[in-house]
Amino acid sequence: MERTPPPRTAAALVIGNEILSGKVEEANLVALARALRGAGVLLRRVVMVLDEVDTIAEEVKALSASHDWLFTSGGVGPTHDDVTIEAVAKAFGVGVVSSPPMEAMLRAHYGDACTAGHLRMALMPEGAALETTTDVTWPTIRLRNTWLLPGIPEVFRMKLPVVLSHLGGDGRAFVSFAVYLQLDEGEIKPLLDRVVADYPDVSVGSYPKWHATDYRTKITFDGREEARALAARDAFAASLPPGEPRRVD
Amino acid sequence: MERTPPPRTAAALVIGNEILSGKVEEANLVALARALRGAGVLLRRVVMVLDEVDTIAEEVKALSASHDWLFTSGGVGPTHDDVTIEAVAKAFGVGVVSSPPMEAMLRAHYGDACTAGHLRMALMPEGAALETTTDVTWPTIRLRNTWLLPGIPEVFRMKLPVVLSHLGGDGRAFVSFAVYLQLDEGEIKPLLDRVVADYPDVSVGSYPKWHATDYRTKITFDGREEARALAARDAFAASLPPGEPRRVD
Repeated sequence: MERTPPPRTAAALVIGNEILSGKVEEANLVALARALRGAGVLLRRVVMVLDEVDTIAEEVKALSASHDWLFTSGGVGPTHDDVTIEAVAKAFGVGVVSSPPMEAMLRAHYGDACTAGHLRMALMPEGAALETTTDVTWPTIRLRNTWLLPGIPEVFRMKLPVVLSHLGGDGRAFVSFAVYLQLDEGEIKPLLDRVVADYPDVSVGSYPKWHATDYRTKITFDGREEARALAARDAFAASLPPGEPRRVD
Repeated sequence: MERTPPPRTAAALVIGNEILSGKVEEANLVALARALRGAGVLLRRVVMVLDEVDTIAEEVKALSASHDWLFTSGGVGPTHDDVTIEAVAKAFGVGVVSSPPMEAMLRAHYGDACTAGHLRMALMPEGAALETTTDVTWPTIRLRNTWLLPGIPEVFRMKLPVVLSHLGGDGRAFVSFAVYLQLDEGEIKPLLDRVVADYPDVSVGSYPKWHATDYRTKITFDGREEARALAARDAFAASLPPGEPRRVD
């Protein structure tokens, strides 16, 4: 059997008092997770912290060293609570400098109304790359394996194509199949244990639905080898008692 | 001036492959964050990890030691991917045992249909307490300062009153006030820096709105001393040019 190499790994660092206070509901992770999954990259860890330079710097240092890619979300504007640039620079032991091309773009954008506050958005860690695509021309900041993405959900999503165009790799996406059951988790545990043992290379998940309508339990079969995930799903479905599963996809 | 003591602190650990893969959108944090804020507890850190016993155990050990409270979300059902109980036991160096009162409740609930799978839900870390209130009688598992909450959003929310009834403390909630501006962040930076310097005990946040309709920037003033947060808001509002703020709350 041909072996799929292990997936590249990623971590995300969500920055912002507004998230941890519940004033704003976090909305970027699910978009990042789905984009990475489509690119065959395994998101292994997410950390959310307050707007504190040293806390952020420590996390960036640890997460960027232990994963192939790190994505930060939030804290990249011009105000006092935007400390991600400073923290990432600190994590990598570099200074913060103003980027001349970024400064020129800001001056062109704001024209006569351009303030010192606006120009703070040209600050970046020394050595950072300004990443763009032909469709997304406003730059995204990347320092080595760490991408600095904005917290505003609409802008975060606009940046994802830039990220994806740079990830490269074997492009083998994660796939997911599922069966839907009327049986509950307690009833199917022995059958689940069997498929988990028989298909160690397939990630099997079991998710009860609280307000049961059309089904009570969803069982998922995930992996980067489509044939194996499908085989695990079909073997599990065939092991069920009559009348199950209610649905397959 | 009377001093408000520093708030108690909390961390949350979200467990589940389905969250990090983007198959399921995380929905519990915002409810936890808001509940803690109302109780005057500062949520300082959130970590999200895969269904891996050792990873979870390490995080539980670190987060429970560095915060007054830790809340886990997910991984408490009966199937192979539910490893939170085992991981929390490992983190605290205790065994996993079946709780006789929990077993009795499960047998009563499932009756003749009760399986070995169902009875796995009676397993818990040795020494854990089963917390209830008069309204929420199905137990919630707590081991020392660590609460094990279920991942299903409806059930997670049902457990929060049990948590809150046990938190105690001075009950002084965080409060938040805001002004809404047509000016952008770059334009108001000097005025913001002034109020941040003058009110070091108030947490000031600045949040641009991407698709500007009624306002472009929201400035928030948060703290546990209502009078100070209000004073900061009003001082900032008074420093603005004519026509601003557009709205105050």
